[in-house]
Amino acid sequence: MQHSFLNMDINQIRKDTLGCADKIFLNSAGSSLMPKTVVEKTINYLKEEEQFGGYFIANQQTEQVNQFYVEVARMLNCRAENIAFANSNTDAYAKVLSSIPFKSGDCIITTDDDYISNHIAFISLKKRFNVEVYRTKNLANHEIDLEDLESLIKKHQPKLVAVTHIPTNSGLIQDVEAVGRLCKAHHILYLIDACQSVGQLVVDVQQIGCDFLTATGRKFLRGPRGTGFLYISDNALAQNLKPLFIDMKGANWTSFEDYQPTHTAKAFEFFEQSYAAMIGFTEAIRYANEIGLANIQNYNEQLSSELRKLLAENSSIKVLDQGNRLGSIVTFNHHKLALTELQNLLSNNQVYHSVSFKGSALIDFTKKNVDWAIRFSPHYFNTLEEIEKVGKLLREV
Amino acid sequence: MQHSFLNMDINQIRKDTLGCADKIFLNSAGSSLMPKTVVEKTINYLKEEEQFGGYFIANQQTEQVNQFYVEVARMLNCRAENIAFANSNTDAYAKVLSSIPFKSGDCIITTDDDYISNHIAFISLKKRFNVEVYRTKNLANHEIDLEDLESLIKKHQPKLVAVTHIPTNSGLIQDVEAVGRLCKAHHILYLIDACQSVGQLVVDVQQIGCDFLTATGRKFLRGPRGTGFLYISDNALAQNLKPLFIDMKGANWTSFEDYQPTHTAKAFEFFEQSYAAMIGFTEAIRYANEIGLANIQNYNEQLSSELRKLLAENSSIKVLDQGNRLGSIVTFNHHKLALTELQNLLSNNQVYHSVSFKGSALIDFTKKNVDWAIRFSPHYFNTLEEIEKVGKLLREV
Repeated sequence: MQHSFLNMDINQIRKDTLGCADKIFLNSAGSSLMPKTVVEKTINYLKEEEQFGGYFIANQQTEQVNQFYVEVARMLNCRAENIAFANSNTDAYAKVLSSIPFKSGDCIITTDDDYISNHIAFISLKKRFNVEVYRTKNLANHEIDLEDLESLIKKHQPKLVAVTHIPTNSGLIQDVEAVGRLCKAHHILYLIDACQSVGQLVVDVQQIGCDFLTATGRKFLRGPRGTGFLYISDNALAQNLKPLFIDMKGANWTSFEDYQPTHTAKAFEFFEQSYAAMIGFTEAIRYANEIGLANIQNYNEQLSSELRKLLAENSSIKVLDQGNRLGSIVTFNHHKLALTELQNLLSNNQVYHSVSFKGSALIDFTKKNVDWAIRFSPHYFNTLEEIEKVGKLLREV
Repeated sequence: MQHSFLNMDINQIRKDTLGCADKIFLNSAGSSLMPKTVVEKTINYLKEEEQFGGYFIANQQTEQVNQFYVEVARMLNCRAENIAFANSNTDAYAKVLSSIPFKSGDCIITTDDDYISNHIAFISLKKRFNVEVYRTKNLANHEIDLEDLESLIKKHQPKLVAVTHIPTNSGLIQDVEAVGRLCKAHHILYLIDACQSVGQLVVDVQQIGCDFLTATGRKFLRGPRGTGFLYISDNALAQNLKPLFIDMKGANWTSFEDYQPTHTAKAFEFFEQSYAAMIGFTEAIRYANEIGLANIQNYNEQLSSELRKLLAENSSIKVLDQGNRLGSIVTFNHHKLALTELQNLLSNNQVYHSVSFKGSALIDFTKKNVDWAIRFSPHYFNTLEEIEKVGKLLREV
């Protein structure tokens, strides 16, 4: 095997990844495999808590805890003060939405390809506060139609533009930088759900020009479950937006009837969190930073384009991904095999994958006229040999 | 030592608690010591995730995951459908507050002794939605004045009555059952912050008659950090209250512009959570259920009243706890020693404790005219010998 494009030691990475030895793991867009140091650091921290109690250890390890913000900032190209820990992408996303004091008639602009939970949150805001929600048209290649977005912005003067960087059920990578330029020109707050992009490729918040960016730990970042983060731009911090529910971590109780909120992104955290998971998550981000996100992105592009090519060559398979720029989420369905047959074939051959159903991609799958898709999401601990094996397995059906 | 009142094997409990061997741990109201099976189960689950990825394991261990709801329901005397997992007490509390569609002029009635983060949340609702917040008078013994509460209810017809069961900075146990009868009679939603009571004593939601009850894992329940739960009564479920931010776990996305929420308490959860922490938390609750909350309560009452007696006998110490019924939070300050001297004395003798400052108990400490208090919170892995040692240590100063 030639990995001539590699600036990283794939053998070492696979040794660090205990879960990849006996299976072909293609579900990093679901919940990936943690590097062993992530698990070790989490466990060691738990054992310290067992001996001394959670508060004592958190106080003793302040520096290790603060490293979380440093590593995220290093990855995203921002300051540590712009970062808040979150329990999940959705947790971070809800805090952002709660920080905008929506009133009846206020407007949010989003996309057809936003994540299901984001759509549900927007509909909830519509029901509760009579917020208007508009979705941009897509171009023929499924990306956001930027002209339509600009005309919607001009017409409705939205409080927020919300875009999912990489939709969960398609390979599409949205042109979030172009959207960022539009939002900046029109002074509109800009929120990105980067759940599927952070860890998979280079995500530079200065380049993108977003005000908020949310991510999860368990997917391409390879962290523990129950972790995530929120980036808040200096622009948004200066606007003094605070989550609706803020606690003693985010604010000082200054008088019987008032409080003073913190000026950093920490106002978006609650006091209590799993420090063990946070320590593990920090190690996962450090691990990715050490390898380099540009290297990871480069390798991942090779893996996913090879996989998409092999699938496209198979006449029984329809690859569903559409877009100018495609990432490490590869979706397809099969003309000849029923879903359960396909799942059994993959499972019996230790190919870990996931299935997306229409209910979680209602708009996208309605347009594509499919009820389900198999989703493969290779990551940098996978190899081209594994990709070829999977291609062969599906060819031989 | 005689433990004639015990229905539990204190030696076994101490063997199960690795952290208690070399110290006198009196900070269960902060973050307690986990039983070793809690840590083991959490670690074993993490190791499974390391091998197979988070989604695969969660799907495989559905029954073990569901046991969480069963054990909480067993402890609180309700159905599993009334329980939601939460990342913390504050997380659960915010979800409850977000489920009530507050409008300008709506009213919340609470107490002077509610938790700091609850006060901050109420003030935030006041700022955002112009919600009125009233606090009941206290009786001379510091408990809620029920007559005042009833007259406030009649006058203001609140949307919510919110009471902290055991305030974080005093030994007081509020008469939450009496408040429950008033709320029921006037058909008012009733929320209890049980952060400090669950795990310390018997908490029976049928007896209390509350609509919502929130708790954390790390304190008297001895679970991992980053865990908590929410109880929602059948009455509240029937009123179809849903959190403002609901996701694909709490709702099905049924059409482009609508969703159908789940009818159980699960509507108050997000899809993503730390299953490892949840599995550990389940074990912590199971462990307490096996010992029996009535036994734990009985033993804890002995420990805390002995501790309070020893402190009260010390002429340099002022015990600050006030109330008819006192629990396992014991607060005091010292006339002769400065706070740092007191802290050093305790720390040098391996007495784990916490310090409460005025900023986190603004109303209570203003009334008590103190700036700080040492807080001891013994739990059922402590012994009377330890309590006597601490009493002696402070006597000898």
